Amino acid sequence: MKTFVMREIGTVGMMDKPEPRPGPNDAIVRTTAALICTSDSHTVAGGIGPRTDLTLGHEAVGVVSEVGSAVEVMRPGDRVLIGAITPDWGDPAAQGGHASQSGGPLGGWKFSNTKDGVFGEYFHVNDADANMAKIPDDVPDEMAVYCADMLSTGFMGAEHGNIPIGGTVAVLAQGPVGLMATAGAKLRGAGLVIGVDSVPNRQELARSYGADEIVDFTTEDVVDRVMELTGGEGVDTAIEALGADVTFQTAVKITKPGGTISVIGYFGEGEFVHIPRVEWGVGMADKTIATGLCPGGRLRMDRLLRVLETKRLDPTPMTTHTFPFDQMERAFEVADQKLDDVIKVLITF
Amino acid sequence: MKTFVMREIGTVGMMDKPEPRPGPNDAIVRTTAALICTSDSHTVAGGIGPRTDLTLGHEAVGVVSEVGSAVEVMRPGDRVLIGAITPDWGDPAAQGGHASQSGGPLGGWKFSNTKDGVFGEYFHVNDADANMAKIPDDVPDEMAVYCADMLSTGFMGAEHGNIPIGGTVAVLAQGPVGLMATAGAKLRGAGLVIGVDSVPNRQELARSYGADEIVDFTTEDVVDRVMELTGGEGVDTAIEALGADVTFQTAVKITKPGGTISVIGYFGEGEFVHIPRVEWGVGMADKTIATGLCPGGRLRMDRLLRVLETKRLDPTPMTTHTFPFDQMERAFEVADQKLDDVIKVLITF
Amino acid sequence: MKTFVMREIGTVGMMDKPEPRPGPNDAIVRTTAALICTSDSHTVAGGIGPRTDLTLGHEAVGVVSEVGSAVEVMRPGDRVLIGAITPDWGDPAAQGGHASQSGGPLGGWKFSNTKDGVFGEYFHVNDADANMAKIPDDVPDEMAVYCADMLSTGFMGAEHGNIPIGGTVAVLAQGPVGLMATAGAKLRGAGLVIGVDSVPNRQELARSYGADEIVDFTTEDVVDRVMELTGGEGVDTAIEALGADVTFQTAVKITKPGGTISVIGYFGEGEFVHIPRVEWGVGMADKTIATGLCPGGRLRMDRLLRVLETKRLDPTPMTTHTFPFDQMERAFEVADQKLDDVIKVLITF
Amino acid sequence: MKTFVMREIGTVGMMDKPEPRPGPNDAIVRTTAALICTSDSHTVAGGIGPRTDLTLGHEAVGVVSEVGSAVEVMRPGDRVLIGAITPDWGDPAAQGGHASQSGGPLGGWKFSNTKDGVFGEYFHVNDADANMAKIPDDVPDEMAVYCADMLSTGFMGAEHGNIPIGGTVAVLAQGPVGLMATAGAKLRGAGLVIGVDSVPNRQELARSYGADEIVDFTTEDVVDRVMELTGGEGVDTAIEALGADVTFQTAVKITKPGGTISVIGYFGEGEFVHIPRVEWGVGMADKTIATGLCPGGRLRMDRLLRVLETKRLDPTPMTTHTFPFDQMERAFEVADQKLDDVIKVLITF
Repeated sequence: MKTFVMREIGTVGMMDKPEPRPGPNDAIVRTTAALICTSDSHTVAGGIGPRTDLTLGHEAVGVVSEVGSAVEVMRPGDRVLIGAITPDWGDPAAQGGHASQSGGPLGGWKFSNTKDGVFGEYFHVNDADANMAKIPDDVPDEMAVYCADMLSTGFMGAEHGNIPIGGTVAVLAQGPVGLMATAGAKLRGAGLVIGVDSVPNRQELARSYGADEIVDFTTEDVVDRVMELTGGEGVDTAIEALGADVTFQTAVKITKPGGTISVIGYFGEGEFVHIPRVEWGVGMADKTIATGLCPGGRLRMDRLLRVLETKRLDPTPMTTHTFPFDQMERAFEVADQKLDDVIKVLITF
Repeated sequence: MKTFVMREIGTVGMMDKPEPRPGPNDAIVRTTAALICTSDSHTVAGGIGPRTDLTLGHEAVGVVSEVGSAVEVMRPGDRVLIGAITPDWGDPAAQGGHASQSGGPLGGWKFSNTKDGVFGEYFHVNDADANMAKIPDDVPDEMAVYCADMLSTGFMGAEHGNIPIGGTVAVLAQGPVGLMATAGAKLRGAGLVIGVDSVPNRQELARSYGADEIVDFTTEDVVDRVMELTGGEGVDTAIEALGADVTFQTAVKITKPGGTISVIGYFGEGEFVHIPRVEWGVGMADKTIATGLCPGGRLRMDRLLRVLETKRLDPTPMTTHTFPFDQMERAFEVADQKLDDVIKVLITF
Repeated sequence: MKTFVMREIGTVGMMDKPEPRPGPNDAIVRTTAALICTSDSHTVAGGIGPRTDLTLGHEAVGVVSEVGSAVEVMRPGDRVLIGAITPDWGDPAAQGGHASQSGGPLGGWKFSNTKDGVFGEYFHVNDADANMAKIPDDVPDEMAVYCADMLSTGFMGAEHGNIPIGGTVAVLAQGPVGLMATAGAKLRGAGLVIGVDSVPNRQELARSYGADEIVDFTTEDVVDRVMELTGGEGVDTAIEALGADVTFQTAVKITKPGGTISVIGYFGEGEFVHIPRVEWGVGMADKTIATGLCPGGRLRMDRLLRVLETKRLDPTPMTTHTFPFDQMERAFEVADQKLDDVIKVLITF
Repeated sequence: MKTFVMREIGTVGMMDKPEPRPGPNDAIVRTTAALICTSDSHTVAGGIGPRTDLTLGHEAVGVVSEVGSAVEVMRPGDRVLIGAITPDWGDPAAQGGHASQSGGPLGGWKFSNTKDGVFGEYFHVNDADANMAKIPDDVPDEMAVYCADMLSTGFMGAEHGNIPIGGTVAVLAQGPVGLMATAGAKLRGAGLVIGVDSVPNRQELARSYGADEIVDFTTEDVVDRVMELTGGEGVDTAIEALGADVTFQTAVKITKPGGTISVIGYFGEGEFVHIPRVEWGVGMADKTIATGLCPGGRLRMDRLLRVLETKRLDPTPMTTHTFPFDQMERAFEVADQKLDDVIKVLITF
């Protein structure tokens, strides 16, 4: 079958591989739609170390083609969504409520990390009954696929942020995950959502997903502006959706005492991430810094699909580009180099 | 000044009283708008015991006319919203997070219970800096007044219900508090909201506030229908918004294992409220029964006002009737006897 | 192999059965020690319906004799503790934090319910890596076996009770699970623990496990006495450890506004369990009623074993009787009929 | 009356001041016992900026000598404990559960910061009913005084750490607050408590308060040793009780994915506090960094006193030195310069 792989650090391309086979708890899925993620670029750039001929991609939907002997819920022919993170649910970390950390730090992240990803005509899903969900009839593939990572990670940002109804929230960076954090903040009942970004089409989407105010860091001081918008007290919740030291520091500064800094960005550089000591309240201002990795699992995916089914949200306006799988190399180039105001690239099969 | 009082159990009427005076931490407010609540009827009927010439009402907004010597934040002339519940925030119950229980069970409920209420030309507010909030310019009085009790209690139903994003919720009874619980469930990100009621104009409002499905208990079995709508598993959260044994029992039955029954109704009758033993999982199904009393306080009111200010919700369609204060007796009759498909009666001053 | 079974409702006895065989994720354990539980009696009496030749028992430790092909952590020869509840960790209920409810209400309860229990020379463990824990060298079998149900359920009572450091707790009934709830309350830092029971050897053990005060319901009014001990305000947490309507009602009455009633008893009788309406605060006193079923899983068992390893607690004084497995019928009679001041009966193999 | 003041940065001494008078909600307390805190030294060294003739001290007990007109619970003659932090409970931050942040970041910290402290023959307590507690007869002054800050802050470290029963905890630094965090970890039911310190008498006390293992950072690598003690996985909770960048970094490194770093130290130096990026899981390992400031209030103080009353803990072995108030200058010297293996200095009046 055809796959799109990282040959080595810095090099990608199409590759023929044999179709995967399921173990007793697993399934094989025929891919119908997939999305390219910024972390695919991080991986190719060497962010998680060297890999050889690793199939990329972790956001996909498809149709079950084969299941293992112990799979009971999922059947061949089912149209399914697969979480980007596919934990081992029996692992102690999962039993303790941290499934994404099963098997070690970030251990639930298997696709295009410790096993082949979803950019192939077929892909393998571990623990199929636990890690996939059936897609309702009225949710199309190109919409459902956003649940795998974008909704799950973005919403986690809002959830970890402990947002009260009517609370104030700032979301730092309005890339696709930040946009879904913005939508998530609104879904949790935030009374004021402030989106920070400088790119016009992202600002516009941010407004449509619930940002009441937009702050452009290229023309305004973010800390000053957020303080002004919150009567000088700062926000209940700041969501860091970029993974950069500078936005992290801003997040700490704009969060009021007792508030939460919720980190959903991937921090790829530097020995340290810097907490600004004084604005952190010298360690005594009841500010909490939460982090996490995209929740996976059938329950999560079922709930995210329900949000789409009852039309609380439509993520498809983030799809700025669509390519068939045989143009995957061009598609990756557009996403990787952020050409043409790209937000999200959809791959059809 | 003119007030509207409960003379004794079963009797109401207008009465002249002297204007109240503030203690050091208090304020006097000139009333501009108020709402009649079902619990005013309960009180007149004797639900909280005998009272003599007690001014009724606990939902109001107004303008500060006078403040005590120790009041620092609120100033005469401020347009303010006052929580229906006005706790003693220094009380140990409040320090433990249960302000509505300060001073004893339901002790934060002072208006028209342990002191005169808001159905007067002026009323007295204890601990003014803690228990009132300034109303933003773009939120009109007749909208802001819904925060005092309706939004605060209804949203509490959703908050105590521990609703996950994408979760399933049933709200039993779509009176004004139930409607705001419906809105609250949507505000918390519920993926499916089921409203239960039989009255057409309440069903219609329920849909507008977020109910995806309506169940009419006069034509359908609620348990069967909710189970059908949730694939046989029951809801994550059932909100009891009536205060009746029968809806409470239904709530327990339709909640799935691990779910929450969130009670916001006032239970006025009977020696016992009945938990159906088997559907409760014989005490072992991880079902939680939560209760509470309308949260008050400046922080709460500020947050609720923000929800209105950013137009997440408009409660004013619940106002089916409006009367000036000098027609208070007729207004109370309409509300008390539920005439003319009344939902909520607004009083203007 | 020899097993001890429920032949039908009301009848027990020894029975020869073939040794069980593991599926890919399972293990077979050679039993070394087991405890008889009150719920074994409930089961024999028909509490969960008719069963035929069902092996009884759910509290056991042993040595792994065989593992399935997909088992990676547990190895033959390992000395292991098995949770009484053996959930399916990939089930949505488990993913949502309610593993004991996986597969439906109380669905994690498999031993001597939906499959053969542990009163045999060997027994079968589903999902072995997830549901068993290795026993530290310095924790003997007859101590470790208490973790399977007694510590896990009793401590859950304290955990669900949301006990603050220095909080007040009453534990209603000091059977073995109640005793461990008493120990659990102390382990969570309760400042005052009140144990309610009338049996002298249970009262004595209650004191040794952390009860500061003992209330004997045969000679005192429990509500009056608890109110007196708490300065008239009631306890932060009442743990119902009997499963009876009368103690449940008492629990509601003695819990202060904002407090929690934590139910760990099995309620076996009656159509309804009765909430006393007025003392419940007419549904508005912020009193929470929590329930649950014994948590299982490797993480839980590891943590409970650690409590024993560092000598925070010694449950073995609850062992009032010890019998070898070939005297199982007599052992069951002692436990079932509560002869001779029995608290807990240990079976050795 | 005599007081002990900070004249200016770097200079302390005795000073005569008039006795304070209460406002309507306040009380005046005649001091009977006090403790010197490390933060008194920080203050004198300029840690919170310049001050002139500010009375030092925030840990004290005494007898009420006078109360304001609105004080209802506390009466002259009552033997009382006063929280080191005396919040404004009506402030929105307090209403939101963050009383120590009332009035702005760390705003609940008034004694020897924004008003005179407790090192005087008398001192003033704002909001007396809310901020003091009556001391039970059988708890002596020199024991009760430890609740004001040491128990409250130390236990907060354990509480914010979200310790499960049987969980693993490391407490970095065993000064008096660290020792009480160690005791707090044991009180919450930790299964393994690791105390880190190099000073013999602190190590010894740590063991007596619940540390199962001691790690001496002068002779061992703390990260390596903690990993070894936890089977390579790290602790559930690391409590930073020093306020230093190096221990903070260690805390992040030794915390397992899904665990919590609970900060109770005061961070007095540097522009930034450094999060080690990789061990933080690149922002995705579900590690939470919590902070806070000593909880105050009557409820808190009542609960802490109850812990002493039921003999869960005896903090008085931390009192290595006792001086009468007229030797305050020598007492301060001993504490400030950490002479003679000092842990805590008690002042008697």
